[in-house]
Amino acid sequence: MNEGHTPTISTVAVVGTGVIGRSWIVVFARAGCETRAWDPDPAQLERARAWFEGEVARLTEAGLVTAEGAASWRDRVRWARTQAEALEGAGYVQESGPERLDIKCQVYAQLDRLAGPAAILGSSTSALDMTAIAAGLPGSARCIVAHPVNPPHVIPAVEVLGGAMTATDTTERTCAFLVSVGQTPVRLKRFAPGFILNRMQAALVREAVNLVADQVADVEAVDAVIRDGLGLRWALMGPFAVASANADGGAREYFTRYGASYNALWQDLRADTELTPDLVRRIGEETEAMLRGVSVADLMTWRDRLILGIRRLKTRHPLHGKE
Amino acid sequence: MNEGHTPTISTVAVVGTGVIGRSWIVVFARAGCETRAWDPDPAQLERARAWFEGEVARLTEAGLVTAEGAASWRDRVRWARTQAEALEGAGYVQESGPERLDIKCQVYAQLDRLAGPAAILGSSTSALDMTAIAAGLPGSARCIVAHPVNPPHVIPAVEVLGGAMTATDTTERTCAFLVSVGQTPVRLKRFAPGFILNRMQAALVREAVNLVADQVADVEAVDAVIRDGLGLRWALMGPFAVASANADGGAREYFTRYGASYNALWQDLRADTELTPDLVRRIGEETEAMLRGVSVADLMTWRDRLILGIRRLKTRHPLHGKE
Repeated sequence: MNEGHTPTISTVAVVGTGVIGRSWIVVFARAGCETRAWDPDPAQLERARAWFEGEVARLTEAGLVTAEGAASWRDRVRWARTQAEALEGAGYVQESGPERLDIKCQVYAQLDRLAGPAAILGSSTSALDMTAIAAGLPGSARCIVAHPVNPPHVIPAVEVLGGAMTATDTTERTCAFLVSVGQTPVRLKRFAPGFILNRMQAALVREAVNLVADQVADVEAVDAVIRDGLGLRWALMGPFAVASANADGGAREYFTRYGASYNALWQDLRADTELTPDLVRRIGEETEAMLRGVSVADLMTWRDRLILGIRRLKTRHPLHGKE
Repeated sequence: MNEGHTPTISTVAVVGTGVIGRSWIVVFARAGCETRAWDPDPAQLERARAWFEGEVARLTEAGLVTAEGAASWRDRVRWARTQAEALEGAGYVQESGPERLDIKCQVYAQLDRLAGPAAILGSSTSALDMTAIAAGLPGSARCIVAHPVNPPHVIPAVEVLGGAMTATDTTERTCAFLVSVGQTPVRLKRFAPGFILNRMQAALVREAVNLVADQVADVEAVDAVIRDGLGLRWALMGPFAVASANADGGAREYFTRYGASYNALWQDLRADTELTPDLVRRIGEETEAMLRGVSVADLMTWRDRLILGIRRLKTRHPLHGKE
């Protein structure tokens, strides 16, 4: 996933090792970074360590890394006992703590005090504004949002957005670093709640919920239209490239020709969706029936393995020739 | 794409051979059906024939069919000179004409008069209600919507929905036939404008357009979040299975835990989107810049090849073991 790259920053700290943080450890260790993992809760760190061992074993078994490669990943991770130990010498910090502004502010105040002066302080937040998180910090210029898709060691996109005080150089260096560890940074122009990713997902989920709530289709049908239909295109192209591929004259012709149809459909989409307990129960039951006994853990393993397969396919057949 | 199946209906007519109709010809011929193609415009039929030859050659070159297999596909297609010739002996008709109710009504009146009494009359309509199309026809019980994703010989999902007079048996036989030719029928419970597919797509496209219009992100960033992020999951799972894979307790826990976040985001999504000429021009320009000179034709060829690759990957690694 980062063939031929050398990380532009050699030592990295992962602070907070829940579901997102533990996956970042794989990203950095795989790319060749000296990676220090720390969590304020020692039990959480222990769970992350056990998951990391299991995940490296699964990836080895699936032929996605050699035994030798896996050993080098393990060697690069230090499970730090204190935050200071994790941060020492780190040029980049990936923070993945709870999504509460008051907690994030505390965590960032500590990071800014303890991390070396050149270190970038990146946050996995999916919702908060860095302007608020870093407000008043001496090092606010080095604070930035780097929000991944779950799980980042499998899915490359990372939303990157600074706060009002973030230096341009911080943004540039963060993007270059993310590319060098095999991720795909995506720069936002300004803050919006949910950034790009959660807004787009919320828009799709809302209509999915509406279709089920309004008895147009069941959960299985809605999911099938995505996984055996629209999602096959979206794994390759976003909505604007899809539009280009649907009209001989490209996106401009497409939106000119179908503008009226979109306007009419947009008028018809309900915006008053509400996830009532009854609806959530029904969705839960229908989804469980659809999955036919597959456990969440098996679903995750299957998802990750196949996504890595799709990414290999895209790497072997790039749209723009060899890049 | 239909390994091990024998079509449940052996002779098929494709009426209307534009972009959708021509792709259906590949679906049926590939599956082993005697396939008769006809278009009221002889020049359109000639273009479809040229496209078919080119597409079969491209699929052969890409190793997706052997030269022998390709020859058998060609042998199974008859390019009919009259509608009656196309319909003679056909047990299933796939109609792919213009999306105007008055035209569809005329076309269906003809089909119902000319087709054998046992033939199912399926329509590729993406928007119209079969209750209205087949109103008053003697054979309204055999009329049904079978709306594919473009292009159906690459993407399997087909939305299936009868009108008020459609017989249950028509729906059952249509679904069984679609499965037997390698497609994935998706049954709707009732009509809604845009069915499932175009409603879900419209919801995503609206937010994509909003993000660009509101200067949160440019076209390239929005597309990247889908193709290198959310779309990688959606090629495998719809939004409800994705929710299951994002919470240890499955979809019910997910929507319980994130219900408030969704409600807040849904409140924040703009519903007054309008595709003004200025916005369409900007989207067109940014999309063209993103594609860096790749032609629409090359984009389609690349898309189709990679989607077939993703489908092979999913077939080799099914979620529910060997099916």
